[in-house]
Amino acid sequence: MVVTPWEVKGKIDYERLIREFGTQPLTEELLKKIASYTSKLHLQLQRRIFFSHRDLDTVLDLYEKGTKFVLYTGRGPSGPVHIGHLVPWIFTLHLQEKFGTRLYFQLTDDEKFLVDDEANLSETRKYAYENALDLIALGFKPENTFIIYDMQDIDLLYDVTLEVAKRITYSTAKATFGFQDNTNIGWVFWPAIQAAPCFIHAKLTGENVPALIPAAIDQDPYWRVTRDIAQKIGYYKPAQIHCRFLPGLGVGGKMSASEPETSIFTMDSPELVKRKIWNAFTGGKGTAAEQRKTGADPTVCSVFQYYFYLFEEEDKKLAERERKCKAGEILCGECKNDLVARLNKFLEEHRKRREKAKDVIEKYHIKR
Amino acid sequence: MVVTPWEVKGKIDYERLIREFGTQPLTEELLKKIASYTSKLHLQLQRRIFFSHRDLDTVLDLYEKGTKFVLYTGRGPSGPVHIGHLVPWIFTLHLQEKFGTRLYFQLTDDEKFLVDDEANLSETRKYAYENALDLIALGFKPENTFIIYDMQDIDLLYDVTLEVAKRITYSTAKATFGFQDNTNIGWVFWPAIQAAPCFIHAKLTGENVPALIPAAIDQDPYWRVTRDIAQKIGYYKPAQIHCRFLPGLGVGGKMSASEPETSIFTMDSPELVKRKIWNAFTGGKGTAAEQRKTGADPTVCSVFQYYFYLFEEEDKKLAERERKCKAGEILCGECKNDLVARLNKFLEEHRKRREKAKDVIEKYHIKR
Repeated sequence: MVVTPWEVKGKIDYERLIREFGTQPLTEELLKKIASYTSKLHLQLQRRIFFSHRDLDTVLDLYEKGTKFVLYTGRGPSGPVHIGHLVPWIFTLHLQEKFGTRLYFQLTDDEKFLVDDEANLSETRKYAYENALDLIALGFKPENTFIIYDMQDIDLLYDVTLEVAKRITYSTAKATFGFQDNTNIGWVFWPAIQAAPCFIHAKLTGENVPALIPAAIDQDPYWRVTRDIAQKIGYYKPAQIHCRFLPGLGVGGKMSASEPETSIFTMDSPELVKRKIWNAFTGGKGTAAEQRKTGADPTVCSVFQYYFYLFEEEDKKLAERERKCKAGEILCGECKNDLVARLNKFLEEHRKRREKAKDVIEKYHIKR
Repeated sequence: MVVTPWEVKGKIDYERLIREFGTQPLTEELLKKIASYTSKLHLQLQRRIFFSHRDLDTVLDLYEKGTKFVLYTGRGPSGPVHIGHLVPWIFTLHLQEKFGTRLYFQLTDDEKFLVDDEANLSETRKYAYENALDLIALGFKPENTFIIYDMQDIDLLYDVTLEVAKRITYSTAKATFGFQDNTNIGWVFWPAIQAAPCFIHAKLTGENVPALIPAAIDQDPYWRVTRDIAQKIGYYKPAQIHCRFLPGLGVGGKMSASEPETSIFTMDSPELVKRKIWNAFTGGKGTAAEQRKTGADPTVCSVFQYYFYLFEEEDKKLAERERKCKAGEILCGECKNDLVARLNKFLEEHRKRREKAKDVIEKYHIKR
């Protein structure tokens, strides 16, 4: 198992990540507290897709006492967006709506240039634009959603970035991110740029409130160093809520843009979606007859994970699908067919909204 | 002897710096070539205050064939400007006028914040403004002088900075600048920001021409790393012409803002100038009688250095002063009195122009 901000591979043991990263599991008590604001617990909490946190309890306590928070998350625009990227964004939208908070969303076109030998800036900037369209398509409103494009918005980030950078030694950065002597100095510096949006709200509005970061757990190292210095520069420690990775359609692992056949991208055609899902790894048996007799294994099935993460909102129906699968009452073909239909319906709607986003994308950009 | 971009101390052996840094001495041939453009050789060349270079010959050859160059120099705004800072700027102005070139002048308010534990950004920004006034007071024209304030202008610098940073490993930066594990990651990154103005002209105008950097030799490490990567990103290697440090008024060493009694600042009152010069270290003897008999030693005299660097433009008069000093025909008091008068006249004029600079300083800022 490898989980770093730049590489996730192997079978992910989330319990072990909680121990190794030193984060907190989401407790029943905390989930109840959240539900008291959101009426119904979001399926991503119900199903523990978000499973771990840092200081979420503190942020909720402050909220209870009248101190709001802002949401902050982002994306490294190294390529097109896939369904796995949308999962935490959908949850972020839910939090935003229920808590009435701002979202700062960072598109790290500079980072993707620095960490990939082959990348060039015009490409990462292009993907930043493309990825922003996918974000907006999910329904975020320009009134309280602020998209930060690092290259364009460095003027807003730079002073806070310097305050952070001054307080992180090379030694700390090396220990946290595994930097080596041949790491380029841009990459070494870059964690300070990812830290800056945690504190940008105070600069823009004068309101000093904590940031809550919903994101996949591979990003946690950034927040560890950011938390260490936050109070030294007069801000709250950023809080996090960590999610799992939507598994790829191959055998185990994260859905990865570098293995396009194992991911469903938002711009994939209906035919391509169909092909990818039909080629997906499942827990099925060698023959239909055998599967009808002994049942299949949904716990290893990538198709089932799609239902679990996004495409079956009703817990009862999900449980029923699981039962039938195990009992051999449905075969993989049926699950795949259903999923292709749901995916393509979702993507069709998404692409319509994504197209409309082109007309309003500028509204999400922070005004000078 | 210590000569780094952040520390200069001890008796400076300039011959040794040429050997250790691997730069070229200014040859008679090269000086003749320069004089062919400037009619008379500037006193700072005549007296070898500028004494070393990298690729100045290349830049002049290109100029001869019709490729212009731009000048680039700067200042770390950690405090007020002293006479030692003005020396290379005066020479830069001369080059600008004779060769009809643009000057990019970088005020590194970010660097001074990063390298000094005690510094804060509002202070370094304030000094950036104050120091810019001193530059403008020397007579630079807004038409071809572009002042870059790192904090304000990071949006212009950032893409080029990233291109540079991606190509410098931590290992190279460590070897060049002596970074250590406890160096902060902002400082590690910062050399890429000092490199960026070498290439900014192409971005602003579309003209890809070399930069010639007149600066004290302690800045040379920056240009070594910049030269190594320039051609990889499609630009000319920056050329340099290196100057000596105006010695402080104490015993040997660079004039230093951290020892205010040994430097003459542009805002020093006439009385303060007088006091500092009267307290200056000279090559005089214990008593007037002894000095009249055996003469004094101008080679160790900080007052004589002021005449040499700036306040005696006529070589004959300078030689005469030197002769008289050695012969005991003038005493230190006379030299000091003369210098106080010249310094205060210079500073009075300078401060008038500096005051006027406040009305036009915005004209020197790069337009968006």
